[in-house]
Formats: sequence, C-alpha cells, structure tokens
Amino acid sequence: MQPRPRVVIVGAGFAGVFALRELAGAACDVLIIDRGNAHAFLPLLYQVATSAVESEHIAAPVRGIIRNMGPRAANLDFCMAEVRGVDFDQRLVLAEGQDGVSLSLPYDYLLLAPGSVTNTFGVPGADEHAFSLKTLEEAVRLRNHILRCFEAAAWTPDEDARQHRLCFVVVGGGPTGVELAGAMAELMAGALARDFPRLGLASPCVTLLEAGDGLLPGFPEGLRVYARRKLEALGVDVRLGAAVARVTPGGALLTDGGAHLAATVVWTAGVKGEPVAARLGLAVAANGQALARATLQSEAHPEVFLAGDICRAEHQGRPLPMFAPPAIQEGRHAAQGILRLLRGREPAAFRYRDKGMMATIGKKAAVVRLGRVSFTGLAAWLLWLAVHLAYLIGFRNRLFVLANWAVDYFWSERCVRLISRRNPLA
Amino acid sequence: MQPRPRVVIVGAGFAGVFALRELAGAACDVLIIDRGNAHAFLPLLYQVATSAVESEHIAAPVRGIIRNMGPRAANLDFCMAEVRGVDFDQRLVLAEGQDGVSLSLPYDYLLLAPGSVTNTFGVPGADEHAFSLKTLEEAVRLRNHILRCFEAAAWTPDEDARQHRLCFVVVGGGPTGVELAGAMAELMAGALARDFPRLGLASPCVTLLEAGDGLLPGFPEGLRVYARRKLEALGVDVRLGAAVARVTPGGALLTDGGAHLAATVVWTAGVKGEPVAARLGLAVAANGQALARATLQSEAHPEVFLAGDICRAEHQGRPLPMFAPPAIQEGRHAAQGILRLLRGREPAAFRYRDKGMMATIGKKAAVVRLGRVSFTGLAAWLLWLAVHLAYLIGFRNRLFVLANWAVDYFWSERCVRLISRRNPLA
Repeated sequence: MQPRPRVVIVGAGFAGVFALRELAGAACDVLIIDRGNAHAFLPLLYQVATSAVESEHIAAPVRGIIRNMGPRAANLDFCMAEVRGVDFDQRLVLAEGQDGVSLSLPYDYLLLAPGSVTNTFGVPGADEHAFSLKTLEEAVRLRNHILRCFEAAAWTPDEDARQHRLCFVVVGGGPTGVELAGAMAELMAGALARDFPRLGLASPCVTLLEAGDGLLPGFPEGLRVYARRKLEALGVDVRLGAAVARVTPGGALLTDGGAHLAATVVWTAGVKGEPVAARLGLAVAANGQALARATLQSEAHPEVFLAGDICRAEHQGRPLPMFAPPAIQEGRHAAQGILRLLRGREPAAFRYRDKGMMATIGKKAAVVRLGRVSFTGLAAWLLWLAVHLAYLIGFRNRLFVLANWAVDYFWSERCVRLISRRNPLA
Repeated sequence: MQPRPRVVIVGAGFAGVFALRELAGAACDVLIIDRGNAHAFLPLLYQVATSAVESEHIAAPVRGIIRNMGPRAANLDFCMAEVRGVDFDQRLVLAEGQDGVSLSLPYDYLLLAPGSVTNTFGVPGADEHAFSLKTLEEAVRLRNHILRCFEAAAWTPDEDARQHRLCFVVVGGGPTGVELAGAMAELMAGALARDFPRLGLASPCVTLLEAGDGLLPGFPEGLRVYARRKLEALGVDVRLGAAVARVTPGGALLTDGGAHLAATVVWTAGVKGEPVAARLGLAVAANGQALARATLQSEAHPEVFLAGDICRAEHQGRPLPMFAPPAIQEGRHAAQGILRLLRGREPAAFRYRDKGMMATIGKKAAVVRLGRVSFTGLAAWLLWLAVHLAYLIGFRNRLFVLANWAVDYFWSERCVRLISRRNPLA
C-alpha cells in the first residue's frame, strides 16, 4: 500500500481554513500549521479595539474547526508552530514548536497562506509610535490604550495635556481606517461619555488622515462620498490629501507641514505580504506578495501553492486587494488545485468571482457594492451584519457577537471596557 | 458652606465595591481607587483558567458599576492608580496614576481594602515555578499554559516527555484547589480529549496535593469526604498529608521525599494580606492582615477603616477566612461606620453573619453548608450556580456566563480555548 500524500498548509487565516475545509475527507493527510492555536476573524478586530466584542469571540481554535467537521475530518491535523523555513528540495517545512522544539514536517504539496503584516512604507516613527491593527493582541493593546487615555485624562488637571490624551488619529482611509474611526467616535460619544461625565462630551476627538483624494479607494464614488459624510456626522474630522511624513510620541506630522497632536496614532494605511515569502526565496512583488502562476502555483515549485494576502493574484488586470473574499476564494481554489494534482490532472486557472465589497461606518450606516449595485444606509448595514456573522466561525461566537451588537444597538453600550494589565509571562 | 467630607476607598474588590454601593447618595464625596479599571469576580478565576468563561465576563468596569447605580451615584468617582503610600497625618493617599503621574488624594475617611496575594510560605521554587490564581491575568496565563502543554505534547514523540507535559499538579485542598482540580479534570476528559484524539484519553493526569488530613478545611466532615470522593471519580489523584518542600521546573517535591513530576504546578495553598498594609506601617498579623478594632477601625487611626482580606476580623473567636462573604459584609459595615461618624455617632462593632460556605467540584457536584444544614449533589450545585450568578456584577456578564455554563453542561464543551499570545506592550 502506498503512503497517502501529505499536504501541509501554512497559516490558519481565511485562505488556510477554507482550503482545510475543502480538503476534509480527501485521499490525503493534511496538516495545518499556525503560530497561534486559533483562526482569528480579522474583519472585526476594530470592534475588539473599540470595546464592542471580546477577542475570544472572534477567534475559533483550529482544533475546534477540525472537530466540528465531524468524522470526514479524520485526515486533518494541526500543529501550533512558527515556520522558520522550507526545504523545497527535500519537501520539508521547518518549524519551531512549543518550548523551542525543532519540527521537520514533510509534504508532497504545500499551501503557503501566511497572510500579511502592517506596511508603514518606511514613514519614520510609524513602527515605534503608531498602533497597528493586524492581530488579536494588537487589537486588545489598542483597546487597553484607548481606555487608559481616558483614565489618564480624568486625572490630568492641565487642559492642554488632557486634550492631548483625548485626541486620536487614524491614518488610512481604507475600510479598516473608516470602520475604526467610526467605531471610536461612537464609543467616545456613547459609553465613554457616560463613563466620564466630568470630562465633558465635547472633549474627545477622532481625526482620520487619508493621503488620497477620497475615502475607501476602489469603492464606487457615491459610497465614498457617503462614507465621508457619515463619518463627519459622527464627529470624525476627515482630512483628505493628508500624507503622514512622521509619527512621534506626540502625534502625526504631515508632508505639507501640518501637525495633528494626539496621544494615539493608529496606522491602518497599508499592508504587505508576510516577510516569510521573501525569506523563503520566493519571487516577490514590491508589496511583499509572492508571484504565482494563474493556477496559484509557485513558478519555481509547482507543488507549492499560494493563497490569501501573500499571493499576488489579479482580477481584470489589476492586483486583488488584501481582503477576506479573495483569500477565501484563493484558499478554496488552491485546495482544489491540489486535489486535481492528486488525481493526475492539471490545476485550473484561478478566476476571482467579484461578489462586491462592503464597509460599515457606524450604527445603521454602511456602504455595500453587490455586483454593479451600490447602496447605503440601514439595508447596507443589515447586510454587513449578516455577512460578517455568516463568515464568523462557531455557533457560540455568532451568538455572543450578536448579543454584544444588540447591546450596542439598543443602548449604545460597549461592554468590553476592561483594561487588561501587562502580562509579561502570558 | 462647609466642604463635603471626602471618603477614599482603596481597592475595588468585594469589600471596596460593596462599601461604594453603601455610600452612594450619602452626604460625602467618595473616590474609589484601584490599580485596574474593573472589579474582578475572583471566585470564577478557576473557570477562566480552564477555558470555561472569558476573563472579560467576570470583570465589571468600576465606572460602569457607578453609572449603573443611577443619579444617586453622583457623589462617587473612580481613579485608576497604584497606591504608593498614605500620609496619615495630612490625610492624603499618595498614588501613581497613568503614565507615572503622582497623585495626592485627600481624605477625611479612608477605607483600606486592597485584598490579598498568594502566600507560598517561603517554599523554595514556588514563587518562580508555580502558577498562581489570584488575578485575571494569572488566570489567562494558566489557561494559555494548559492549552500550550497539550499543543506541545501532541508533537512530542518521546513518551516520558509527553507524559510530563500532560501531568498537572494543584497544591492546596481549599476551595480554590478543589474547584480548579475538578474543572481541569473535566476540561481534559471533555473538550481537550476531543481536540486531541491522537493523544489518547488516559494520558492527562491531575494531582491534588493537600498537606492536611482532608480537603476543604473548615467545611463539615461529610462535605469534605464527598468532595474527595467526587474528585477521585473525575480522575483526580488526591493526595492527603502531602506537604510540598520545593517546586522545580520539573514538578513538586514533598517533605516525605516523594516527587510529583509535572510540567505544571499551580499554587493555591495560601493567601496573605496585601503587603501594602505592612508598608504603610499598620500593625499586621503573621499572615499580613492588618489588625483592626471590633468596629473595623485601625487602632492607630480611627478615621481609617479596614475591610476584606486585608482585615483581621474574628468570628466566634477565630479569624475569618479570606473569602468573599466576609469581605462583602466587612465592606458594607465599614461604610456604615463611616456614615455613622459623619452623623456624629460611634461606629458599631462588626458581627459576621455566617450564612454558610460552598464549593463546587464538577458538573452537578458541589458541597454547601447553609447555617447548620449541609448538602451535596445537584441541589448544592444549582445553589452554587445561583449564588455565583447573583453576585456577579452586570446583566451582560450574567447572561454570557450562564450561556457558557449551559454549553459546558449540555455538551461538556469549553469554549474559550484560545491561547493568547505574548503581548509585551499591552
């Protein structure tokens, strides 16, 4: 009897998890590797950062995902480890497991889906002084910091110093920046205004800096205008054409000489492919994405597939954005390519099915493009809720997130206002 | 017009929060200080450590507690700061606020309720190598560690090394140790056995070490025997007369020469009063508790009250244990003492109303003494659930904890199996 072919998936994000589901029950052994033990639903990180949902509610342990697939998932296994390298000749993934143990994990087919990291484009000070929002830990860190700024401001008698602590700058007018700025404004006008009645309602300010000439690049014009108008109605100071030249502990300095003083600068202005692609020697684009064939196979190693933010895939001649829908479709397609190779067939070319795009601004305010149809307002917001709940993994997570949203909707309350303290040994 | 008298409460545990509630609407300004921003429901820490509930669900932000009291709480305020000292002559609490700012907070009456810390009684290695369970952060740290031990064991080919990672020792047979050991055994036999089908059901082991001749000292004999029998039925290896001489990275060594090899040792064998009492120059007992008059006033400073774990209070000639019910009653009584002084009357002596004691062992198994009546089993367990839900602060927290318990009850599932990664900047 021949040994079963081995598939290794690196990364338990959208691409990795949807590939994993595609491979459940197939005639191969599948191992998925991630440095954490859970799939994190990154589109809701901004809600963790703004005290709306628990980080645990947007995380699904990978072993639980496998278990919930039932008996047909018997060919799937998980390894919590940090990938250190790939020996493409010997077909081995080299990883560091718990307690620093070295693991050498053989594969016949490899799917690389390690995701992306924040891209500060070399702006001085951004790495050191700006908050980022790409991981659960960063989201909790930002939540802690926002709440701590208010606790500090409450006991700062000096007016200027107090105002500085209550000024928040979000850099980047893409979906993450728009959603975060809106959620911060609502948090501060709602729950935090009630928590800090002596600070005065007018004090906190949220500024959104976008270098381009409009918010939500890539969205239809009408939606971009609506998003700006709604954010401004929430009290967000939206600045277009505002390119950040430097981030300091005191705020953000612009290329035009302007300055936005703030104790908090959040950088959402860019992402780039996980540096692991370049480290592995794969050919990468300027934004760190690895180049792939139309089939999502690596050019140099056809037994290696790429999917998700790490993968340079195109749609109508333009690179796909690093959003969840392309990652999901690429992950599924790469898995199907592996299944075709297992059956002695050739992988097919990847074609992105553009279902649309969406972003939420605040309560009852969202923008949606569905195919060629665009709409805004309550209907868009309800669709946004439904889609995000549907893609959130785990019944309990959906129930708890929905309950938190209901509390937020009916009482403008943000429940998770806990400052978790430093946990150096965690 | 005379300035209103100022009351400062140090610590937002049970004693501090119940005192705060007693003082809402009174003719004084009340400031409560805590190093965190939330009241933590410590009796459920063991459930955080065993993946049953989120740490956020057993925490209630102090500002939210004040806000939920409505308009009569207008005389209450909160300060998130670390108390560094008290100037008893000038009647000032000296504290370090956010960003290291020095605060000097005047009081006319002071209530000290800073709680307790783990007491390792000088056992070598216990501080360095044993886990503790006195704060939300420590509970999350233990959860992470338990889950990581399983992830490591899954990729440890050596049989002895794997078994070592799957052995867990709990030191101390009081309520915390009993509840933790039972919850760990259920976690491992339920959710983790299903998460790690390849490890084999029989592998993990939980050992409970108690130096005395029985579990749950202070409980009626019948309940102590029941607790031991139930724990053993869950697979916990209960060792009585097992005094720990040393904790090493490899396990716990006993005074009789025995050794329990384990990658995890949790120390629940003792608590002592917060060291701040001794630092402030108050007269303290050997266990760090500050001595108080029968009225809970400090002997040297009658305008200073003591309540909760920091306070040496007696009942029927014996010191009260450092549990929640005495803390709640002492906090209320100290607040009433302050109110009496405000009205020119003398504080009354504290009398503990012994309603009973309870501890849970596992699903449908708990021990309860209500006055002179003792019972066990399902009825005790349901009463334990009801009492803990009732004292948990916040409607949302109660709802979510109850939902988690229901999932645990019906499906033996533990939902919060997330390993939160190191967050050095949190």
